[in-house]
Amino acid sequence: MTRKKILISNDDSIHSKGIEALISIAKQFGDVLVVAPHAPRSGMSNAITVELPIRLKKIEESPHITRYSCTGTPVDCVKLAFDQLLEKSPDLILSGINHGSNSSVSVHYSGTMGAAVEGCIHNVPSIGFSLCDHSPNADFEPMLPFAKKIIENVLENGLPTGTCLNVNAPKGKPTGIEICRQGNGRWVEEFDKRTDPQKRDYYWITGFYQNLDNGSNDTDNHFLEEQKISIVPVKIDMTDYECLQNMKNWIF
Amino acid sequence: MTRKKILISNDDSIHSKGIEALISIAKQFGDVLVVAPHAPRSGMSNAITVELPIRLKKIEESPHITRYSCTGTPVDCVKLAFDQLLEKSPDLILSGINHGSNSSVSVHYSGTMGAAVEGCIHNVPSIGFSLCDHSPNADFEPMLPFAKKIIENVLENGLPTGTCLNVNAPKGKPTGIEICRQGNGRWVEEFDKRTDPQKRDYYWITGFYQNLDNGSNDTDNHFLEEQKISIVPVKIDMTDYECLQNMKNWIF
Repeated sequence: MTRKKILISNDDSIHSKGIEALISIAKQFGDVLVVAPHAPRSGMSNAITVELPIRLKKIEESPHITRYSCTGTPVDCVKLAFDQLLEKSPDLILSGINHGSNSSVSVHYSGTMGAAVEGCIHNVPSIGFSLCDHSPNADFEPMLPFAKKIIENVLENGLPTGTCLNVNAPKGKPTGIEICRQGNGRWVEEFDKRTDPQKRDYYWITGFYQNLDNGSNDTDNHFLEEQKISIVPVKIDMTDYECLQNMKNWIF
Repeated sequence: MTRKKILISNDDSIHSKGIEALISIAKQFGDVLVVAPHAPRSGMSNAITVELPIRLKKIEESPHITRYSCTGTPVDCVKLAFDQLLEKSPDLILSGINHGSNSSVSVHYSGTMGAAVEGCIHNVPSIGFSLCDHSPNADFEPMLPFAKKIIENVLENGLPTGTCLNVNAPKGKPTGIEICRQGNGRWVEEFDKRTDPQKRDYYWITGFYQNLDNGSNDTDNHFLEEQKISIVPVKIDMTDYECLQNMKNWIF
């Protein structure tokens, strides 16, 4: 296989253990450009930075890997790479490996998936990788052979225009890979209300995930519970075509 | 019709003209709770605030309308309303009216649609409204009778679980309403690179929209060009089911 050009980003910052794990796999396939947030930007979704200027700083240049840290969001990182750093489209965009799950509805909040969705919008095969372990010292080793196989398949088979992959791995040794649908659920927030020294209230976001799938056996969350790696193909086109047809009889 | 409880947010801030226009319509249907960003948060997508505490400030309480300004994102506003301010789920969640289009792929970056998607995840009928005019003094009047009809239809017909609406209105007087699909396109960024007084580079995001639909006559962008209001039903489940089936023959 000819050496590929691979763009990598994430949302846990360029200093995270997860991005190092992803780079270690990616460099087996080709030359790597890393553009990632200089500090953690979890929960940034597909956000772009409109109100503030963005800074970009080269922190490594070696024969097969170049790294930039960026003050913007994960999506800003991908957009800046395309506009300022890449001479032509890369062959592949990888995001992660995220410290923590991005399964089910978390795809909407995830900065990791924000970068993958942005890569897909730029018409490059894109994969977001996450490990169901929030720890800064999470062990990524057990999932790496599976991540490599997934990348090989994407390079071999390609992905449909407008579709990227949301890959989640269970903590510990995975027992297989399952292609599946996005689980149905929501985060139930329980904001932690506190009072600052000036006697003013403030809130920290906190909460728990509520599974709304009632035992379905075809979702990412189901397979993760079974110690499998889940792959959900994610569409950029969010149109609900069934609803579109049903709404034709609305009266305006 | 019994009076409804309606939650309103946006991304242009609680001080924008667009949110006032939306409140003026919503209060015809019932009691309104407004929780909106204290400052502009355009491009915030479905982002949540993880790294900073969030502040919430009541700025109006009258018999039929209560307003809070919030330092968080549009999604934080909706989440805080559910966890801290509402006794039970509202009947409807409205977001906007955004100063500027959120058609096509902009649904992914839009804080306006972030709030609507969040409402939908909370299983409440939710609508994001946008006007194709970025001006702070944009004229929302011509679209208001149409917005009212759309709200009436949603209250009457409901929306499927997991689907919300992305409504965009052309500048000027609309000539009708079309239910349609999300147009296919992307933003091509041209970052504006500058140098600060300390001789360090920084970037402002800027760019233009590239339509990739080649004259399709069934997209939101198409109907907006025809001076119609576009309604795209937007799904929370982003799974590409066709791709899911096709990937079953991948070899791992």
